[in-house]
Amino acid sequence: MHKKVLVVLGSDSDYEVMRGCFAQLARFGVPFEAAVCSAHRTPAQAQALAAEAAAEGFGVIIAAAGKAAHLAGVLAAHTTLPVVGVPIKSSALDGLDALLSTVQMPKGVPVATVAIDGADNAALLAVQMLALSDGRLAERLAQAKRDMAQEVLQKSGALQDRLAEFR
Amino acid sequence: MHKKVLVVLGSDSDYEVMRGCFAQLARFGVPFEAAVCSAHRTPAQAQALAAEAAAEGFGVIIAAAGKAAHLAGVLAAHTTLPVVGVPIKSSALDGLDALLSTVQMPKGVPVATVAIDGADNAALLAVQMLALSDGRLAERLAQAKRDMAQEVLQKSGALQDRLAEFR
Amino acid sequence: MHKKVLVVLGSDSDYEVMRGCFAQLARFGVPFEAAVCSAHRTPAQAQALAAEAAAEGFGVIIAAAGKAAHLAGVLAAHTTLPVVGVPIKSSALDGLDALLSTVQMPKGVPVATVAIDGADNAALLAVQMLALSDGRLAERLAQAKRDMAQEVLQKSGALQDRLAEFR
Amino acid sequence: MHKKVLVVLGSDSDYEVMRGCFAQLARFGVPFEAAVCSAHRTPAQAQALAAEAAAEGFGVIIAAAGKAAHLAGVLAAHTTLPVVGVPIKSSALDGLDALLSTVQMPKGVPVATVAIDGADNAALLAVQMLALSDGRLAERLAQAKRDMAQEVLQKSGALQDRLAEFR
Amino acid sequence: MHKKVLVVLGSDSDYEVMRGCFAQLARFGVPFEAAVCSAHRTPAQAQALAAEAAAEGFGVIIAAAGKAAHLAGVLAAHTTLPVVGVPIKSSALDGLDALLSTVQMPKGVPVATVAIDGADNAALLAVQMLALSDGRLAERLAQAKRDMAQEVLQKSGALQDRLAEFR
Amino acid sequence: MHKKVLVVLGSDSDYEVMRGCFAQLARFGVPFEAAVCSAHRTPAQAQALAAEAAAEGFGVIIAAAGKAAHLAGVLAAHTTLPVVGVPIKSSALDGLDALLSTVQMPKGVPVATVAIDGADNAALLAVQMLALSDGRLAERLAQAKRDMAQEVLQKSGALQDRLAEFR
Amino acid sequence: MHKKVLVVLGSDSDYEVMRGCFAQLARFGVPFEAAVCSAHRTPAQAQALAAEAAAEGFGVIIAAAGKAAHLAGVLAAHTTLPVVGVPIKSSALDGLDALLSTVQMPKGVPVATVAIDGADNAALLAVQMLALSDGRLAERLAQAKRDMAQEVLQKSGALQDRLAEFR
Amino acid sequence: MHKKVLVVLGSDSDYEVMRGCFAQLARFGVPFEAAVCSAHRTPAQAQALAAEAAAEGFGVIIAAAGKAAHLAGVLAAHTTLPVVGVPIKSSALDGLDALLSTVQMPKGVPVATVAIDGADNAALLAVQMLALSDGRLAERLAQAKRDMAQEVLQKSGALQDRLAEFR
Repeated sequence: MHKKVLVVLGSDSDYEVMRGCFAQLARFGVPFEAAVCSAHRTPAQAQALAAEAAAEGFGVIIAAAGKAAHLAGVLAAHTTLPVVGVPIKSSALDGLDALLSTVQMPKGVPVATVAIDGADNAALLAVQMLALSDGRLAERLAQAKRDMAQEVLQKSGALQDRLAEFR
Repeated sequence: MHKKVLVVLGSDSDYEVMRGCFAQLARFGVPFEAAVCSAHRTPAQAQALAAEAAAEGFGVIIAAAGKAAHLAGVLAAHTTLPVVGVPIKSSALDGLDALLSTVQMPKGVPVATVAIDGADNAALLAVQMLALSDGRLAERLAQAKRDMAQEVLQKSGALQDRLAEFR
Repeated sequence: MHKKVLVVLGSDSDYEVMRGCFAQLARFGVPFEAAVCSAHRTPAQAQALAAEAAAEGFGVIIAAAGKAAHLAGVLAAHTTLPVVGVPIKSSALDGLDALLSTVQMPKGVPVATVAIDGADNAALLAVQMLALSDGRLAERLAQAKRDMAQEVLQKSGALQDRLAEFR
Repeated sequence: MHKKVLVVLGSDSDYEVMRGCFAQLARFGVPFEAAVCSAHRTPAQAQALAAEAAAEGFGVIIAAAGKAAHLAGVLAAHTTLPVVGVPIKSSALDGLDALLSTVQMPKGVPVATVAIDGADNAALLAVQMLALSDGRLAERLAQAKRDMAQEVLQKSGALQDRLAEFR
Repeated sequence: MHKKVLVVLGSDSDYEVMRGCFAQLARFGVPFEAAVCSAHRTPAQAQALAAEAAAEGFGVIIAAAGKAAHLAGVLAAHTTLPVVGVPIKSSALDGLDALLSTVQMPKGVPVATVAIDGADNAALLAVQMLALSDGRLAERLAQAKRDMAQEVLQKSGALQDRLAEFR
Repeated sequence: MHKKVLVVLGSDSDYEVMRGCFAQLARFGVPFEAAVCSAHRTPAQAQALAAEAAAEGFGVIIAAAGKAAHLAGVLAAHTTLPVVGVPIKSSALDGLDALLSTVQMPKGVPVATVAIDGADNAALLAVQMLALSDGRLAERLAQAKRDMAQEVLQKSGALQDRLAEFR
Repeated sequence: MHKKVLVVLGSDSDYEVMRGCFAQLARFGVPFEAAVCSAHRTPAQAQALAAEAAAEGFGVIIAAAGKAAHLAGVLAAHTTLPVVGVPIKSSALDGLDALLSTVQMPKGVPVATVAIDGADNAALLAVQMLALSDGRLAERLAQAKRDMAQEVLQKSGALQDRLAEFR
Repeated sequence: MHKKVLVVLGSDSDYEVMRGCFAQLARFGVPFEAAVCSAHRTPAQAQALAAEAAAEGFGVIIAAAGKAAHLAGVLAAHTTLPVVGVPIKSSALDGLDALLSTVQMPKGVPVATVAIDGADNAALLAVQMLALSDGRLAERLAQAKRDMAQEVLQKSGALQDRLAEFR
């Protein structure tokens, strides 16, 4: 039976940014569940989500939060599952606060941090982890990598037309 | 009966920096207790400390932590007592990570943040809060303020001697 | 008799950002007064406001200012009441200047700093301080904390519907 | 048969910082190999290491690099295995350059970034990933988490003695 | 026969910013080719472009990329031609991530970095390099410099009219 | 005869930001001249402007520039008149580049730096300098300071009406 | 009669850094007085110093302070004399806090900011201001500028010997 | 006849950092001359050096400077030769000021910026430029690239011994 991914949003305002995460998980056929849960406003739920995640069949937790983004770290405190952190850019400091709050975890409790607003990559990272014991998923990742390269090559071709204005 | 201050260190390596905090609390005769407790390594203890602090007779919690300093925020999630956060400078980024992780709290769960390594001021802030309902403590604060001014004036006097080399 | 909160705006352009502060104080039924007063343009008024605040029945001062935000620190220089500082984001540097100018206070004169544009939290922090000697206010804070958690849980429920697009 | 971890150092000068990584892998009994390999000085080797890693029995790649730290990203370009990036602090900018170069990966090629100089956590993250399909490893992680908590509690006990100077 | 300039865009979304680069190359009559090629999505193509550039008649490579901008460095790893890097500003961190990822190259593999979004200057720098062995190009650069000065002088004249409102 | 102020804009695109500077100089009746002149595009003119400024009757030079803002420093290299630098915010880095380029001058050649986009204050600073030997100007400054305070007091009065929504 | 310079140190720990300021003032024969005075610890003295400075014969005020460096701004609030601010680097944030706190002054109250720890330049800037109405001082500045250039030329000569190791 | 490289140091205190630059130029047999010359202290010499460089047989100028590092930009203003800028780290801000002052050049006057304290790479970049019209130099660069790779491979071999402590 396949392990699921748990996606936790620190605020429902993070939904738009995180749509790419859900889309990637769906694209790879990885089952997932999602919750809005705040390290500060609903700490008991955060603890419960993380502490029970392994038993509930989750293999990876993705946590998205902005500002003093404690969510990923707090979840990681309550589980030994890998936790992927997505720093969300908010109205001030251009995401630097969320990035440092997510990535600078102390020794003993890692958070696998992706780029600011890096929703797609959080999903891909989770898929990569699950693919370690799922050959079919690994093959899908390899195919996606080839597709991605192909797409860039096509764009490079299209670029030649746009350059006509400078010739 | 006087309320106590609870001082929580995210790591015992923060002790040297936080000596100024303990010294100020002792100077003002404010009772305090202290613990080493990590938001990430001992989350259950952190929760318990905060959740029971009011009932245990504490009025203010001071939390010191470095890097992705979640401690103050995590404690604040479990109490309505005021929580003072002291960002601790560690080996990289010069304390900026701890500062942003401590101060940029989301709406609903404030942390009263002082300067990086601002151990003395964390204590003074706690004393100011307790003095709101303790006139004697308020008077001691006023006296300390006068003493502090006096000390600066004396240093200004001493400066005149040092300037002799430029006259 | 209940202590009041004094809210000082460094500029009337800070009013929109600070509406959340006034709203929270009103919500908790905490009496407050407000003034526009600049550390640099009206230093005498700033000094008077702070120096007389305790005698006028204020228990906490909240100061909001942007750029080289000296207001909170200057007020704190003239009182032993706790001063809460709200760094206001202005047109350059994304609020970093106001944050550092507010939080990095020297030893002896603390400012309880909240997040950039953290108007609501400044009020909540002031309420927490006043609640130290006001049991009814403390209970209201606890209730607000429960309400806040409930609101997040409802949003988490609503999230499930939005995820339908990915199922 | 257990999957191995491949640890790649961008420079042999990173060895001292990365000792914690090797120590953690050894502690958990996870087999690993290591190489010095630079994205810029030995790009062909970097490509080969990453492209052949899965076939060589590796499950996770850990890459440590400083300054414009391209190593983790370059390795990730050639594999679908999860790649953990460790930004190494060098003589200027306090590690910020390595952090941003490692974490801000574009959509499609994630790097699981840990804290600046976060050698131990890189190993723990790799172990967490491998433990997804290795129950015994998962149990060891859980035990390590309990040990870590215990250690903090002991330090908290020891703190009481040190506080005697302020009593 | 004149050496060509190879302009590589990490993403086709960089085209608009880089139009100034193409325009400058066209203005100086320097032949150029362009490609979309990503260090992470099409690493094999990136390697091939750089490794074969000298033999294909290119004298300078210009690489534009955002976020963790590895492109210029990766190209430089595979050639001894001078590589000019243009850090592209993206949605977070205001271009600082791309700047540091581009400029902080380790010893042995330089990237000639220009300003964030400095498309025109990348082209001018390439032209300056080619002009080292092309006297006619050198003279065109000198003329362009004189024209540029003339343009500023005209603007200074026009400024006098605008100042009328203050007289 | 009164000394004039020379205002130098690094680019005519700085005009809008600098309107406050011209307005303040006009308000205080201080004669001024202005030029567009770039440290990099018209270095000879920059040198000439600065070198001849004192002889031409100028007492202070104000220089506004963005990005790698060398203008103020370059002018200061050619004169012993006080040079006021105004860092101009441009499209990236939020003005930090211009600020550091303007203020971090080496020993021996100071630039009196004001805030990012601080056009008004640059003029006021120049007026303060000229007022050192012009009592009437000094009195106007004092009056302006009183007016400014009065204006704040009026805004504080107006604030009371706006607060009605929270009463 | 010559105007004096008033040098105010926010802390006596700033003395070592500020020795260059005193040395330059002495070198140019400009009379000065100095005081230790804190915007936060001795606000009344700060106000008095600034408010009475003009009447006491001072022409320029130099203020040096670290961290949330309010001193220069607070002095400027109480005088229309030009105030030169020297941001002092302290133990965290590498002087950035002091720089932003000093330079980012709001409209109406400028501070002429020099580089972090720029003690010598603060003095030179003050001398430049006083030289506006003191031709002899202006000539000394011009001579110092020539001497400074001469000194660099001599160092350039000495460099040739050091380069022997590479010939 | 081979073109020379002109190395300009903004201060003789930059010599130690720049030794790597001289060493690399000597290693490749590229003739060079060097001068100490400041954009601010000896502006006339800076202008002369740059304006006459091409006629004196120089092909590339390397400029090293710290703090508000205007040197490279000022030289670039007076020549159409490519100018390589080396930002030098000084006592505050960890080199960020020099980096931004060097790299953020306005449109029309590029500076090819290398890493903070990137002395070796500045030389290599200059050699790469000169190699565009010097096949033998190009071959030496290619050989140096191969040697560099070989050296890394040897270090990777040596790493295996050091890892014995973890086996």
